[in-house]
Amino acid sequence: MLIAEPLQRAIDELSKLPSIGRKTALRLALYLLKSEKADVELFVKSLIELKEKIKFCSICSNITVDEICDVCKSRKRDRSIICIVEEASDIIAIERTNEYNGLYHVLGGVLSPLSGKDADSLNIHKLIERVENSEVKEILVALNPDTEGETTTLYLAKLLKPFGIRISRIARGLPIGGDLEFADEATIGRAVLGRVDL
Amino acid sequence: MLIAEPLQRAIDELSKLPSIGRKTALRLALYLLKSEKADVELFVKSLIELKEKIKFCSICSNITVDEICDVCKSRKRDRSIICIVEEASDIIAIERTNEYNGLYHVLGGVLSPLSGKDADSLNIHKLIERVENSEVKEILVALNPDTEGETTTLYLAKLLKPFGIRISRIARGLPIGGDLEFADEATIGRAVLGRVDL
Repeated sequence: MLIAEPLQRAIDELSKLPSIGRKTALRLALYLLKSEKADVELFVKSLIELKEKIKFCSICSNITVDEICDVCKSRKRDRSIICIVEEASDIIAIERTNEYNGLYHVLGGVLSPLSGKDADSLNIHKLIERVENSEVKEILVALNPDTEGETTTLYLAKLLKPFGIRISRIARGLPIGGDLEFADEATIGRAVLGRVDL
Repeated sequence: MLIAEPLQRAIDELSKLPSIGRKTALRLALYLLKSEKADVELFVKSLIELKEKIKFCSICSNITVDEICDVCKSRKRDRSIICIVEEASDIIAIERTNEYNGLYHVLGGVLSPLSGKDADSLNIHKLIERVENSEVKEILVALNPDTEGETTTLYLAKLLKPFGIRISRIARGLPIGGDLEFADEATIGRAVLGRVDL
């Protein structure tokens, strides 16, 4: 017995999503199959509207429903600091902390020669424009603490140095609630090097 | 900053899916946002067609695009044995083994007083009709080997006993590729009790 064709197609499409394998895709498809028709219509509508209504901010490439995003529009934000992140989802993560009140800039990736991501494919050109034409005093680089993130951070630091502004990056160290005993050497090493006075 | 409303709605809808939490839902939504419009349209279309085209077989409640499913229609299947499964997805799993050539019957759940599933809410009435009105000689119960599955298996065995047909259930024992050392006591116990002659 073959799987009925519409079900097979739904499984194929669902398993294209990141972190969804074929077994999970089958489970999701059967869940939708058993759901009320109205619920599935709501589900599908939300995805269509996601694609139709969401744009990317023309200044920082953050997610927005307008031409310019809420952060870039806001008069309450500190316009002298720009935080560089890899993806728009990182902005959501940083905003949740309530510890940052500056602007953002979404790179759209990190330097990764193996997957063909070079400086030209990143949103760097617009960043330089912003630094040149505004009152920016500090660039805070908030990329993931892995090889690609580190490489990109160093690349950006070198690139932005001539502008004579402060260039910082988010601290590396032990995560809150972490355990010294189980942390890896690299993290403990960074935590020791980055020690702060009490 | 709040998350843009269409994105928030897509996250809400995606996180209703089983095994999808809010963080995964955000990741999936951002993935769809970055995908080509045509790809998202294909994705959405597959879900709409899944809901519109797939029906449940009027005999066994298997998934089908017609009134009656491929298994019930087929002339090559052994009509003297019916395998009882909890969900239509279990049929797919059993069909993949190529070890079973009989018919199926989807119960649509198992007895579970805690979640309000009693015998009336299961697809049992139609099963009795099938046993009464056809040449069925054996019922093979293939429910999950957990408390609810066991309870339901015993319930069905008692219910079907008056018909004087053979009632069997799939074997419990060590899974192929499993390790005796790491198997739990219940599984090893069943494997010993269910030993077969060589």
